[in-house]
Amino acid sequence: MQKGFSALDRRAGLISLLEPGSVAIVGASDDPARIGGRPLRYMREAGFDGAIYPVNPNREMVQGLKTFASVRDIPEPVDCVIIAVPAKIVVKTLEDCAAMGVKSAVIFSSGFAEAGSDGEAMQAQLSDIAESSGIRILGPNCLGILSFKARFFATFSASGDGGFTAPGPLAIISQSGAYGTHLYAVARSWGLGVSHVITTGNECDIDVAECIGWAAEADEVKIIAAYAEGVKDGPALIRSLKLARANNKPVIFMKAGCSEEGAAAAVSHTASLAGADEIYDAVFSQYGVHRAGTTEEMLDIAYACTAGIYPAGNRIGLVTISGGVGVLMADYANKLGLHVAPMPKAAQEKLKAALPFASPRNPVDATAQIFNDLTLFGKNFSIMLDEGKYDVAVAFFTIAAASPYIVDPLLKELDILRKRFPDRLIFLSLMGPGEIVARYRNAGYLTFEDPCRAIAAASALVGFGASFASIGSSTTHDTGETRPRKQLPARPLSEWESRELLASAGIPVIEGKLAKNAEQAAQAAAALGCPVVLKINGADISHKTELGGVELNIATPDGARRLYDELRARVRKHAPDVQPDGVIVAPMIGGGVETILGVQLDPVFGPAVMFGLGGVFVEVFRDVVFRLAPFSRDEAMKMIFGIKGAKLLRGVRGHPPSDVDALADALVALSRFADGHGDILASIDINPFVVFPEGRGALALDCLVVPKGAVALEQKN
Amino acid sequence: MQKGFSALDRRAGLISLLEPGSVAIVGASDDPARIGGRPLRYMREAGFDGAIYPVNPNREMVQGLKTFASVRDIPEPVDCVIIAVPAKIVVKTLEDCAAMGVKSAVIFSSGFAEAGSDGEAMQAQLSDIAESSGIRILGPNCLGILSFKARFFATFSASGDGGFTAPGPLAIISQSGAYGTHLYAVARSWGLGVSHVITTGNECDIDVAECIGWAAEADEVKIIAAYAEGVKDGPALIRSLKLARANNKPVIFMKAGCSEEGAAAAVSHTASLAGADEIYDAVFSQYGVHRAGTTEEMLDIAYACTAGIYPAGNRIGLVTISGGVGVLMADYANKLGLHVAPMPKAAQEKLKAALPFASPRNPVDATAQIFNDLTLFGKNFSIMLDEGKYDVAVAFFTIAAASPYIVDPLLKELDILRKRFPDRLIFLSLMGPGEIVARYRNAGYLTFEDPCRAIAAASALVGFGASFASIGSSTTHDTGETRPRKQLPARPLSEWESRELLASAGIPVIEGKLAKNAEQAAQAAAALGCPVVLKINGADISHKTELGGVELNIATPDGARRLYDELRARVRKHAPDVQPDGVIVAPMIGGGVETILGVQLDPVFGPAVMFGLGGVFVEVFRDVVFRLAPFSRDEAMKMIFGIKGAKLLRGVRGHPPSDVDALADALVALSRFADGHGDILASIDINPFVVFPEGRGALALDCLVVPKGAVALEQKN
Repeated sequence: MQKGFSALDRRAGLISLLEPGSVAIVGASDDPARIGGRPLRYMREAGFDGAIYPVNPNREMVQGLKTFASVRDIPEPVDCVIIAVPAKIVVKTLEDCAAMGVKSAVIFSSGFAEAGSDGEAMQAQLSDIAESSGIRILGPNCLGILSFKARFFATFSASGDGGFTAPGPLAIISQSGAYGTHLYAVARSWGLGVSHVITTGNECDIDVAECIGWAAEADEVKIIAAYAEGVKDGPALIRSLKLARANNKPVIFMKAGCSEEGAAAAVSHTASLAGADEIYDAVFSQYGVHRAGTTEEMLDIAYACTAGIYPAGNRIGLVTISGGVGVLMADYANKLGLHVAPMPKAAQEKLKAALPFASPRNPVDATAQIFNDLTLFGKNFSIMLDEGKYDVAVAFFTIAAASPYIVDPLLKELDILRKRFPDRLIFLSLMGPGEIVARYRNAGYLTFEDPCRAIAAASALVGFGASFASIGSSTTHDTGETRPRKQLPARPLSEWESRELLASAGIPVIEGKLAKNAEQAAQAAAALGCPVVLKINGADISHKTELGGVELNIATPDGARRLYDELRARVRKHAPDVQPDGVIVAPMIGGGVETILGVQLDPVFGPAVMFGLGGVFVEVFRDVVFRLAPFSRDEAMKMIFGIKGAKLLRGVRGHPPSDVDALADALVALSRFADGHGDILASIDINPFVVFPEGRGALALDCLVVPKGAVALEQKN
Repeated sequence: MQKGFSALDRRAGLISLLEPGSVAIVGASDDPARIGGRPLRYMREAGFDGAIYPVNPNREMVQGLKTFASVRDIPEPVDCVIIAVPAKIVVKTLEDCAAMGVKSAVIFSSGFAEAGSDGEAMQAQLSDIAESSGIRILGPNCLGILSFKARFFATFSASGDGGFTAPGPLAIISQSGAYGTHLYAVARSWGLGVSHVITTGNECDIDVAECIGWAAEADEVKIIAAYAEGVKDGPALIRSLKLARANNKPVIFMKAGCSEEGAAAAVSHTASLAGADEIYDAVFSQYGVHRAGTTEEMLDIAYACTAGIYPAGNRIGLVTISGGVGVLMADYANKLGLHVAPMPKAAQEKLKAALPFASPRNPVDATAQIFNDLTLFGKNFSIMLDEGKYDVAVAFFTIAAASPYIVDPLLKELDILRKRFPDRLIFLSLMGPGEIVARYRNAGYLTFEDPCRAIAAASALVGFGASFASIGSSTTHDTGETRPRKQLPARPLSEWESRELLASAGIPVIEGKLAKNAEQAAQAAAALGCPVVLKINGADISHKTELGGVELNIATPDGARRLYDELRARVRKHAPDVQPDGVIVAPMIGGGVETILGVQLDPVFGPAVMFGLGGVFVEVFRDVVFRLAPFSRDEAMKMIFGIKGAKLLRGVRGHPPSDVDALADALVALSRFADGHGDILASIDINPFVVFPEGRGALALDCLVVPKGAVALEQKN
């Protein structure tokens, strides 16, 4: 973050990089295929209309342009400098730029943070220059920028060989240069228009998060595709994602490094301090980002977004000329969470009347009969959209739609439908010569060869639709009371202290008493009612069961009295150094579903709340979800029903439905506490948190709060 | 099944359909775009060299050929008749064919079983004719056959417009005509050669299973892609799949109808009696079939199979010019179960020496530096394959490989590598003009634009490799003892009878005694050692817990004595009609992991054994696997480690590793029993089957065997 410069200054600097009025190229080459030659060639071929100043101390002219020995020699102000020189002279070059008031620089050169400690030191110098002078930097170790409207192509990627395409709605923002330009190459081969490709490389200044934020506000960008192995500034990413959502711009994000092998490769690739992968899932879920796993998925969705229709619901209507493909599409839509809702009975009768051979339920198998009279197709599809009220529809035609006898009458019907249902998201699954497919696209339809890819894209757009519709409700605080902030000591808390703290935060905790001697233990047991549980308490006791410090099912106050001293003796034997602070006496609780609530401090995104089923579920299935704190009750409900085992909470044989309201309240309370204390907290574990049947609440049976100070202390020792 | 004809006769009939020497077309049309006109046109355009006899009572000539009024008028023998007339005259036509000694018929006509009871009756007549005369029938309601080597195109699909392609290694076998020809259209557009497209429609005689078996033995078929919504003859499918596996031919199967919506659509589409979807998963798993979910997945794998290399292991080496794509590929390979094994340290040093900028671990990020000297790429890739011992490799080049400066030197290196490592499965991920991509393909490499699609295909081929290697070990009986077959009564068994039966089958059952009075209960408790459990026993008691018929944790023989009468009284009160037959006394068992073992009788495939974790795991996660009985110990181990919760059996915190040997033995024993009694069995439930820690065995605590006679009885009542 450049401290002396406002967000407005920074944004102006970024824009000078994306739409410069004048450009210098340091290390300009006369060879149009070389790193220092390509950008110059590309800009001139594409018709960039600003001033271009080649800089090369060894030449008078480069590619026919007057050439300067140094940036300092350029007589006019320069908006952006492209730096294509060896790493060791980059710092000096950037200093020259800063001195001349250059607004921004694109640094291609590698040999910085990715190349060891010397490179890291040089990169730090670049950051310092950016911070002190206000010059904005893209890179180093990046493939530059493709800015289509400005016809500014500051890249040495081969992706401009053969010319660039016309501007389109998709901004590609990628830490990886090769991947960003690969995305562009694939988009180009599909005819999918791109507005910008921005590759951020080592991110000594400008990062992916900032570029997403800029794209969220740029008029010419309608769709954002991003690639990152991790971001360093979590809150900045969240601000940008919020902005994109507020402006109804879908963000499709490939966050690589989700497997152990991938993460190992990512570390060797960029050495970025990435947050935990599952926290990215939480962020993406909270801010409506689609996380893509493959290039094809990414660009399929981007292409579908060009329709600009983000459905309000998930009802999908399927029309097919092949019963088999109807089955296949229904299977796949179902798998992706779309609702293959049957047509209303009355409408089925209408369809049947028009096409007696058809299967009218949904999928609607219109059979090849429709090709005998395509007005029947138009009529039936119209009934489907009208009476089936589908948010999305996919019609499968395969090669038949390319037949010369079919194209014109089918397009005529489709034109009528498009006018009648302008807001419906409709995909055609067909194949044929490019020029014929183009006619269907030009008629206002999305086309896919493979119907399953259409359905997958549809599912993503339904997700965007839900996210855009939820603004204001899903992730922000609801209007609960604000509780006073607590101080935390610089040591682990005991279970008793943890209980008190969480109870004061509004989390229901099982009743109990802290006994300081055997007699108090007996009195507590009598007061609480037997059977009770006794648990040793102490700030330095983290594995009390293993130490023999827990005894369940104590039947009488006398038993509690006897066990008070025994527990202490056992613990002393196993761990002579610990200093117990009494024994907790609590009632035995039966029934309910065991869950786990927790808080983790992510290094990038801050406090995140975890929720999952307890016991072996978390150990064996890792069936847990995360959300950044704080969050609303709606979001808590999404968490609860987002785990795979949610069925257990809804109620299965032998288990009545659980009190998810009480559970959601506890999650919200925990998220508020985590938010209010994120700076002084290391972790919270509430395990088990037992959820009783509907109307009967929920209780934390055990818990542990670890302040940040305690972890620091431990690392010191 | 045609009873009077041998398998050899039937096969000859099928071959007469695929490679006829002479063909008649009933309903031949002079219009080359009509149903009865297309096959004639296609065959003549393609140069079919047998005799062709149009049949049409209204014309002298059709498409320039002498035409006959009836099949009976054709003077020469006819191998195959194509029937393209309305349903109502199909039976008569087929009778004529049979009378004339025609060997086979393709029936395009619809209006049979898919169209209600009249159609069903007509279809039954077709089956009867096939059975009595030996004529083989494809269809009705099918799109016919494309047989490329024979240039026999008996189809009215539009897929032949524009000509057919040269024969290739892929046989497409599909119940759905539109889907089968769609697959062909996509394969053609990819340049993937096809040997046959066979669409079986309503399958009144020839079905998908038989065609797979034929393809498994046909020399010109190397790869089999099948589509079905269900098969009627499970054992026939299994025979065919075994044959394909024995001949090292991969089968890629799209079994549609896996979701509720899909299954509903399948029923309305073909009304085939499909077995349970999860039993298909079992069959595919046991016979090494890849179950595909999308067309693209299906043909990607089929294309990759054209290399004919089925790896012995799952080590994948990844080379990339983009670190980002390396991360992405590693993530994806990991997700699909491939092993992104790191390069040996010494080999990493060698790579580093040659390419200092490279990241040598795996993925190997060779960076764009390699384009400066492609011999370095060749050298490094060679070190990878040699010392990394990867079974599969994917190299990502994107558009760079299409650069005119790169193609020749890169191909030179790749040629050397191909010769040195002829048996390695190597994919290139690249994009560019078709003719350049073709050069890489012609050099003996598989090419994919998207690296993730290459990895997905690689993963499927690794699966085929494992399956081909496992022949003889994985699904057949191992040499265990054969136990005598038991008779089962035509009523449900009591728990005690079920215990005895399963124990005699070799399944370990908890010890216990059947007490017939209170005194015996007390004696049993004393003999077994308290605490014990008491359970009411009786053939007509299926929900004993709900009836109050179970009591746990009985501490003394006296308690058992008292409870004997109480249990009987409780059950009498809740269910006055039942006739308990004593009370089972068994020891209380603690510890171990609860699992469920079961047997289901699939209507298509026969007895299948189920295995899963018990309790809420099965209710909430449906985390169960099936295998057809009988199976070997190897297969039982695959089942055990095939569930998602297998980690629990391997041992997690608080749970030691379980005795999976004992569990596998029990599964094998159960599978043998199910196999031996499949004809008289309805179901078996062993729940819980508790697996103790390693070396300590496993025990059935409760079980229920339901003979087939009992279910028949229940349905009668």
